[in-house]
Amino acid sequence: MRTGFQEQLDGLTQTLSDMCGLAGAAMERATQALLQADLVTAEQVISDHEHLAALRTQAEEAAFILLALQAPVASDLRLVVGSMQSVADSERMGGLALHVAKIARRRHPEHAVPEEVDGYFAEMGRIAVELSACAQEVVLSRDPEKAAQISRDDEAMDQLHKHLFTVLMDREWDHGVASAVDITLLGRFYERFADHAVEIGRRVIFQVTGETPEG
Amino acid sequence: MRTGFQEQLDGLTQTLSDMCGLAGAAMERATQALLQADLVTAEQVISDHEHLAALRTQAEEAAFILLALQAPVASDLRLVVGSMQSVADSERMGGLALHVAKIARRRHPEHAVPEEVDGYFAEMGRIAVELSACAQEVVLSRDPEKAAQISRDDEAMDQLHKHLFTVLMDREWDHGVASAVDITLLGRFYERFADHAVEIGRRVIFQVTGETPEG
Repeated sequence: MRTGFQEQLDGLTQTLSDMCGLAGAAMERATQALLQADLVTAEQVISDHEHLAALRTQAEEAAFILLALQAPVASDLRLVVGSMQSVADSERMGGLALHVAKIARRRHPEHAVPEEVDGYFAEMGRIAVELSACAQEVVLSRDPEKAAQISRDDEAMDQLHKHLFTVLMDREWDHGVASAVDITLLGRFYERFADHAVEIGRRVIFQVTGETPEG
Repeated sequence: MRTGFQEQLDGLTQTLSDMCGLAGAAMERATQALLQADLVTAEQVISDHEHLAALRTQAEEAAFILLALQAPVASDLRLVVGSMQSVADSERMGGLALHVAKIARRRHPEHAVPEEVDGYFAEMGRIAVELSACAQEVVLSRDPEKAAQISRDDEAMDQLHKHLFTVLMDREWDHGVASAVDITLLGRFYERFADHAVEIGRRVIFQVTGETPEG
C-alpha cells in the first residue's frame, strides 16, 4: 500500500513538472508567434492548451483520490495539497501563453508589437521560459536554493515590465492606442506568468523548509 | 469528534463566505476611489487587503488541519478541497480590488478614468459587487441555481469589457495613451475579479451536483 502511495505521489509530482514544461513551451511558441506574426504557431498554442487543461483535471483527480484513499499526513499531505495548488498555477501559465497567442492571431498579418518594443517581449519571453524550466525542475528536485532563484529571476521580469510602461507612457508613442492596449495586456500576461512560477517555487520552499519565503 | 469536525467545516465555509464579502466590499470602495479620485478610500482599500491575506492563510491552515486530523472522504473531502481553492480565488479578488485602488492612488488628484468611460466602470463595479455578494451567499446556501447565476451575470461583465475596448480602439480616443493603458488594466482587473467569482460558483455547483458546469 505504501509503495502504491509513493508511486501515486511521484506520478502527481511528475505531472506537475510536465505541466510546468508544457506551459513554458507554450509561452516560448506564443512569443515566437507574437514577434514573427506567425499565425500557424499561434493557432498551435491555442489548440494545444486543451491538453494542459486536461492534465490539470487529471492531476486534481489524482490528488483527490490520494487524499481520499491514503489520508496522508504531515509532509506528504503538504506535498499533495501543494501540488494541487501548483497544478492550478501551471495551467494558468499555459492560459496566459494562450492569451499572448490570441493577440498575435488577432493582429495577423500585422505584427501586434511594433519593432521598437520587440526587444522587451523577446526578453520577457526568454525569462518566462527560464522561470518555467526552473519550476519544472524544482518540483522534482525539491531544491530550495534553486526554487529561490525563481523569485530572483522574477525581479528581472518586473523591471522589464516597468520599463515597458515607461516607453508607453513617457515618450512620444506614435503607434496608436490600439497598439498601446495590446502591449499593456501582453506585458501583464508575461508578468502574471512569472508570478505563477514564483508561487510554485515558494510552495516548494515551504514544503521543504516549513517556512514561507518573504515576498 | 464528528461534531467537532462539522463545526470546523462550518467555520471554514463561514470564513470563505466572509472573504467573498470582504472582496466585494473592497471592490465597491476601490470603484468609488476610482470614480471620485478619492485618495482616502483608495488608501483604505490598499491597507485593508492585509486582513484578507491573513484570512486566506488562516483558512488554508484550518483546511490543512481538517485534512490531517479528520481525513474526510467523499463529499466532505470535496468541500474542504473546494473551499481551499475558493479561498485562493476570494483573496485574489481582493488583490484585484487593491490593483484598482492603486491606479486611483497613482493618478490622484487627477481622475484615472475620463468622464466619457465613467459609466463603464460604475457598471462593472456594480456587477463585481453583485457577483461577490452572490458568491458570499452560495458558499453558505449551496444553492446550485443561485450559483449558476454568477456565470450568467459574468456575461454582462464580459460584454461591458468588450465594449470598453471598442471605445478605446475604434473611436478617436483623445485622452492619450497613459489613460488608455490605465483603462486597459482596469478593465482586465474587473473582468478577472468576475472570473474568480465564477470559479467559486462553479465549485459550489460541482460540490452539490457532482457535475462540472460547462464554461
